[in-house]
Amino acid sequence: MIYADNNATSPIDPTVWAAMRPYFEEKFFNPSSPYTPARGASLAVSEARERVASFLGSREDEVIFTSGGTEANATAIHLARMWHPDRRHWICSAVEHASVLEPFAALEKEGHCVTRIPANRDGTLDLDVLRASLSQDTALVSVMLANNETGVVHPLLDVVAAARAVGVPVHTDAAQAVGRIPVSFANLGVDILTCCAHKMHGPKGAGAVVARREIPRNPLLSGGGQENGWRAGTENVPAVVGFGVATQRVGESTVRHLRNLREIVERGIHAALPECVIVGENLDRLPNTTLLLVPGNQYGRDAGAA
Amino acid sequence: MIYADNNATSPIDPTVWAAMRPYFEEKFFNPSSPYTPARGASLAVSEARERVASFLGSREDEVIFTSGGTEANATAIHLARMWHPDRRHWICSAVEHASVLEPFAALEKEGHCVTRIPANRDGTLDLDVLRASLSQDTALVSVMLANNETGVVHPLLDVVAAARAVGVPVHTDAAQAVGRIPVSFANLGVDILTCCAHKMHGPKGAGAVVARREIPRNPLLSGGGQENGWRAGTENVPAVVGFGVATQRVGESTVRHLRNLREIVERGIHAALPECVIVGENLDRLPNTTLLLVPGNQYGRDAGAA
Repeated sequence: MIYADNNATSPIDPTVWAAMRPYFEEKFFNPSSPYTPARGASLAVSEARERVASFLGSREDEVIFTSGGTEANATAIHLARMWHPDRRHWICSAVEHASVLEPFAALEKEGHCVTRIPANRDGTLDLDVLRASLSQDTALVSVMLANNETGVVHPLLDVVAAARAVGVPVHTDAAQAVGRIPVSFANLGVDILTCCAHKMHGPKGAGAVVARREIPRNPLLSGGGQENGWRAGTENVPAVVGFGVATQRVGESTVRHLRNLREIVERGIHAALPECVIVGENLDRLPNTTLLLVPGNQYGRDAGAA
Repeated sequence: MIYADNNATSPIDPTVWAAMRPYFEEKFFNPSSPYTPARGASLAVSEARERVASFLGSREDEVIFTSGGTEANATAIHLARMWHPDRRHWICSAVEHASVLEPFAALEKEGHCVTRIPANRDGTLDLDVLRASLSQDTALVSVMLANNETGVVHPLLDVVAAARAVGVPVHTDAAQAVGRIPVSFANLGVDILTCCAHKMHGPKGAGAVVARREIPRNPLLSGGGQENGWRAGTENVPAVVGFGVATQRVGESTVRHLRNLREIVERGIHAALPECVIVGENLDRLPNTTLLLVPGNQYGRDAGAA
């Protein structure tokens, strides 16, 4: 079997899995407990946080672990809402993941206003619409770093520049980008970045919100004070440890390797099916993603592989 | 080492661990993907749901998997709030877990009114305060089934009877009770019950909300439509599978075994330290929990063990 659905979930890396296992077995302790073996679990979470922060180009105290990408996106939107509770306008791309689109639709039902930036045929965004719709009533701009279907990498630097000019915070859902292309929270200049482990050969059950420290601390899940008060709940220690280790296995060679594989696939497709169109073929795309337009009824519909 | 902190987290059962492992390894698929191996992951989640529903005395379609107890409690409160958005009064016991107390405090900050039922010296609740404070403006009564520090089991049937008389929904946080005493959603008559796996020898990263189907479906985490639209996010398949198996290892003998162990401990304490008081000693308590009051400065403070 050749597995081509890594944008849905990816097989766990053996090194990741080996690092997680002890935290299910002899190191099962609750990191909040005060005795020595439990301190070990707490230190493991800290080490994972160092690794994720280093990988994402952020400070350690900017990383909030969550149960995954969906909770991370819900947290990002919650943080933005509580940051500027008086603002009633939201902007996102029309091609965001459902975990951004649906909370925005819920805000709309509550009476907020949402602008959705349309995507062009090649998967790029119309930034003129973004610029024209920004105002001081905008609570958040949410644009994913790379799209899950086309792989097209969005121009976040331009998005941030436009938003910053009017004092509007920016969130980027980087769930599909991390592990496939270099991602730096500091260099992107966004206020909030979200991602998850299981699309980069880490485990399900771990995600992260990276948030600037000046954002007011209003947890979506409150209670036990974990994550320095940003996200309550007993830490999923093995999953967090696995997330940390998953970041270590990504390097420059990862991008090259993925790009080589994709070129083999796309060359083969062009040779065998010359009438196929690869969406955004000449654009900056994730090196692991191909979206095909296949003409003719015999194929029925678009086919994507990652 | 004798581990006496099971109310914080419990070691994973070997059978649970063995059942989970394949879903980290060869069965890593995303349950939402449409091809055959991924169907296997989806079926595993369904089987876990059957097991948890059967264990908790609910229908399968009443079980919503979450990332743990804290998210489950946040979801319960969110569901109640969206169910009766016009109601502005909330009741809980003063001894609830922080994942109930803190969201209630946040509601108070928003201008809602919260009544906290005080606990007596023996850990019981003053239900007269509950009855006197109930009104048609009450959005939710939240009373934990058993307390994490005293182990005292609260009279949920009385709470439900009082609340039902004025049309107020009831939530019970059963995180400390499940796996230690028999718990039946149907028999308790509550509207929402929450619990988690890692306190009953299951994994961290899995919890459940059991909610009556007549409650409007307003997910706290929205997006992908998982959990029949009640909770979005890629399922943490191994954790959910582990939760399901953890319910299978609990039986009548579990309660007897725990009670025997506790009696040995408490007899030893009485013999060695006759001045100690065991809080709620003669009350209905969890068979795994002892809270000691130790007089005299040399001990410093209360000591609990579970």
